[in-house]
Amino acid sequence: MKMRTLFASILSIGMLAISINASANEPIQPIKAAKVTNPEMVELGKMLFFDPRLSKSGFISCNSCHNLSMGGTDNIKTSIGHNWHQGPINAPTVLNSSMSLAQFWDGRAKDLKEQAGGPIANPGEMASEHTLAVEVIQSIPQYRGYFAKAFGSDKVDIDRITTAIAAFEETLVTPGSRFDKWLEGDKKALNQQELEGYQLFKSNGCTGCHNGPAVGGALYQKFGVFHPYETKSKIEGRKAVTGKDTDLNVFKVPTLRNIELTYPYFHDGEAETLEDAVKIMGKLQLDREFNKKEIDSIVAFLKTLTGEQPDIKLPILPPSNNSTPKPVPF
Amino acid sequence: MKMRTLFASILSIGMLAISINASANEPIQPIKAAKVTNPEMVELGKMLFFDPRLSKSGFISCNSCHNLSMGGTDNIKTSIGHNWHQGPINAPTVLNSSMSLAQFWDGRAKDLKEQAGGPIANPGEMASEHTLAVEVIQSIPQYRGYFAKAFGSDKVDIDRITTAIAAFEETLVTPGSRFDKWLEGDKKALNQQELEGYQLFKSNGCTGCHNGPAVGGALYQKFGVFHPYETKSKIEGRKAVTGKDTDLNVFKVPTLRNIELTYPYFHDGEAETLEDAVKIMGKLQLDREFNKKEIDSIVAFLKTLTGEQPDIKLPILPPSNNSTPKPVPF
Repeated sequence: MKMRTLFASILSIGMLAISINASANEPIQPIKAAKVTNPEMVELGKMLFFDPRLSKSGFISCNSCHNLSMGGTDNIKTSIGHNWHQGPINAPTVLNSSMSLAQFWDGRAKDLKEQAGGPIANPGEMASEHTLAVEVIQSIPQYRGYFAKAFGSDKVDIDRITTAIAAFEETLVTPGSRFDKWLEGDKKALNQQELEGYQLFKSNGCTGCHNGPAVGGALYQKFGVFHPYETKSKIEGRKAVTGKDTDLNVFKVPTLRNIELTYPYFHDGEAETLEDAVKIMGKLQLDREFNKKEIDSIVAFLKTLTGEQPDIKLPILPPSNNSTPKPVPF
Repeated sequence: MKMRTLFASILSIGMLAISINASANEPIQPIKAAKVTNPEMVELGKMLFFDPRLSKSGFISCNSCHNLSMGGTDNIKTSIGHNWHQGPINAPTVLNSSMSLAQFWDGRAKDLKEQAGGPIANPGEMASEHTLAVEVIQSIPQYRGYFAKAFGSDKVDIDRITTAIAAFEETLVTPGSRFDKWLEGDKKALNQQELEGYQLFKSNGCTGCHNGPAVGGALYQKFGVFHPYETKSKIEGRKAVTGKDTDLNVFKVPTLRNIELTYPYFHDGEAETLEDAVKIMGKLQLDREFNKKEIDSIVAFLKTLTGEQPDIKLPILPPSNNSTPKPVPF
């Protein structure tokens, strides 16, 4: 028995070495499964993520625009907010978002915790206020119990609410894609077209920005390096954060993980298909005119980046009671 | 071993007999767990229930207003529809709805299948059209595969879509409430106040309408038997279906199962608390003026009707592709 364990350990180390070897020279690394250190915190965060009572109307939750049934997005060009407000920007996926250098397209929030507070109080999104959101959650004794389990005391404040949501979001990673299997040594995981697509993706320089485990998210880049991007969108990108003219149209490079699920594409959502997106990116960012065969191969490769989607048990939310502030939908 | 099995069987039969005995003379019967005969159909129905692509905007799914995290309702007075349309009526819970004699507050749909087609094509709800909804689902090969598994062929039409949704909804029952445990013989399942509440509920005649396993849903009744109900709502009730003046303000008696979760109450959602609802129902329907102690006891009893909520694994929806009709949110 001991010998067998020892043998298995040696075998594991050997396989790990092969696995590290296989992806060591690639610009993309496999995604690792999430490590949960505080399951009570994650569970609380999941409830809050699904709870529309964080919005003024009682109708919009984090999951409304970062729908975990649909790649962590809403799959519409720009999001619908309170009172059917037409949002200015395409909702980025929440999947693997913990790997980004900052949050939002313009990176104006330094992490998921800071991000989570934004939409709750944005009049065009959930349209609540932090004080109101706290009042709602605090009024519910079951929630206070969950806060006590997660934080050690039942105090509810916006810092704790966003901390819990961020803790849940950190678990929303998608390992196990076919591309990751290939990286880890399973050479049959990709077919010829997909491999050709990956070679094109590398040789043309897409990996200059789309690299690392999230295949993006690690840097800012101007959208329109060689040619300007034409759009009706008034979004300025990083300039809105730094005030610098040189940051106009500079955005956080989006992750390409699960890109098959997170359509439509770009900050204005104007690219409806992956083929369109690849063609435009090639032209604007790399001054390349990809032909149809090249585009099809790159798209085939991109579709191998779809990972295992988070296994979510729908939370049952504790009910409001007579002292809970009521939603104001109209 | 055989003796033990025999003994266990005798014991089970004995307990069953006690159980039947315990609830035989009560006007309310326990809820039975759902029997799933076609799991592929139920799984498909779950996907469709959660799929916002059945709406014009791509934003509203069945679960938006019949939220399974919140007792199968939206917990707002009247529902939000396409373009933030203010719905005319309070969304009834989907939980245990299969036990109703008909669907909608006015019973205009004979069953869940017929009901499911309504909101999809209602301009003030999901605002799609049946042909468009079919086109969307049909364009997705993975969905066609699920239809093949559920129905034996991959044809997609509105009849099959609504059949599958109804099959899923039929599984949304909530057995195991404390009241059901009491009915089944566990006399410690209710405390003194809850028992007193149940006695008041029976002795005052509430069980005249709120009876059976769903504690409602089995008949139509005029809202305002002794005194008229005052409301700004223009909803006519059964009159809208039958055309008869005598059916004005006649509604399907709502289920009281999970009533703690399905606030606010009445077809116009104007009763915010269970205490208000009990007081008004006592006065209007029974000509009783319940005192505070009586109301509190009845409310305590009603809260024992909260059953085990459905255990739902969030479905991962198959992505749209280049041929899928695009949502039109704005």
